[in-house]
Amino acid sequence: LNEPLDEVIKLLARLPGVGRRTATRHAYTILRRGEAYGLELAEAVSRLVRETKLCERCHNHAAEALCRTCTDTKRDARRVCVVQTPPDVSAIESSGAWDGVFHVLHGVIAPLDGIGPGDLKIHELIGRIGAEPIEEVVLATGASVEGEATALYISRLLSDSVAVTRLARGLPAGSDLEHMDAPTLARAFEGRAAL
Amino acid sequence: LNEPLDEVIKLLARLPGVGRRTATRHAYTILRRGEAYGLELAEAVSRLVRETKLCERCHNHAAEALCRTCTDTKRDARRVCVVQTPPDVSAIESSGAWDGVFHVLHGVIAPLDGIGPGDLKIHELIGRIGAEPIEEVVLATGASVEGEATALYISRLLSDSVAVTRLARGLPAGSDLEHMDAPTLARAFEGRAAL
Repeated sequence: LNEPLDEVIKLLARLPGVGRRTATRHAYTILRRGEAYGLELAEAVSRLVRETKLCERCHNHAAEALCRTCTDTKRDARRVCVVQTPPDVSAIESSGAWDGVFHVLHGVIAPLDGIGPGDLKIHELIGRIGAEPIEEVVLATGASVEGEATALYISRLLSDSVAVTRLARGLPAGSDLEHMDAPTLARAFEGRAAL
Repeated sequence: LNEPLDEVIKLLARLPGVGRRTATRHAYTILRRGEAYGLELAEAVSRLVRETKLCERCHNHAAEALCRTCTDTKRDARRVCVVQTPPDVSAIESSGAWDGVFHVLHGVIAPLDGIGPGDLKIHELIGRIGAEPIEEVVLATGASVEGEATALYISRLLSDSVAVTRLARGLPAGSDLEHMDAPTLARAFEGRAAL
């Protein structure tokens, strides 16, 4: 192949789930689409990494000092949903299930990986509880061991000053009982509610 | 989301097999990798579309007036492999099955899509036969109806002036008979050879 093509393939192949084969296909598609598309893509990627910073309040990605959610006056700023990563915010926003604001921890407590509370935006969360009129903190870390442990840790720090809740665990929508794993079934029985 | 992120997701989602979900994951990965990777990718894509042209001899993508294969003196320039597209050249090169040169048609004859011989680099191929010391033309268009028809068309044009061959059809390597389609089996029987 020629050198610019090799270079694009090498870089695209570093994206998750993109092997050399897919990267090659993408590089040829970019060429086939013509110069305008390629230049637009290059400029967009360059702008993305140059202009994206962390929101001063919620620590999600933002193009300005504050992100769109934090500056949106229609959001309920009294309720904060605490998540692990920026993509978690995207997933929740796409679901339309939440009209409060967010706080991004940028990870979970994982002692085996050397990640302690001080490596996350937990201190900043405590700061927000004191400074903003927050009434409820919804802990929306993952349902993994680390996610649960992080939720428990934050809950202990905050439960004296604010209402702390955790996302429900149970059967995912559309699921068959037959294919559910034991921990999910156990949680679903524990959390059963009157109809 | 914020605007630069939306823009990158929108553009990546136009690549084949990349939906909004995958594009979103890629965009977040680019951010997570840090500014250096993103800028390198942007520059590589930009260079790719700005600097890539078609080789004056074989019409494959090239960074210079002639591509790497056409300027490689170790290639057997007396044998030309005719393919539909630039990615076909990559596939053949990766296989190591060919040490001759190439000619890229940039498509196949497809009357239903309004693509006739004049839309392909067939005229240029005929020109090469006259101008270069070519002894064999291997027709490596696809085994589709259009690929076969295009091979037949070119074969009729060239067979008086040069040896014209076609890639063998038969069982793909590693295949089970049980899962082969009827046309593949029919071709494999037709082309059977003494052991």
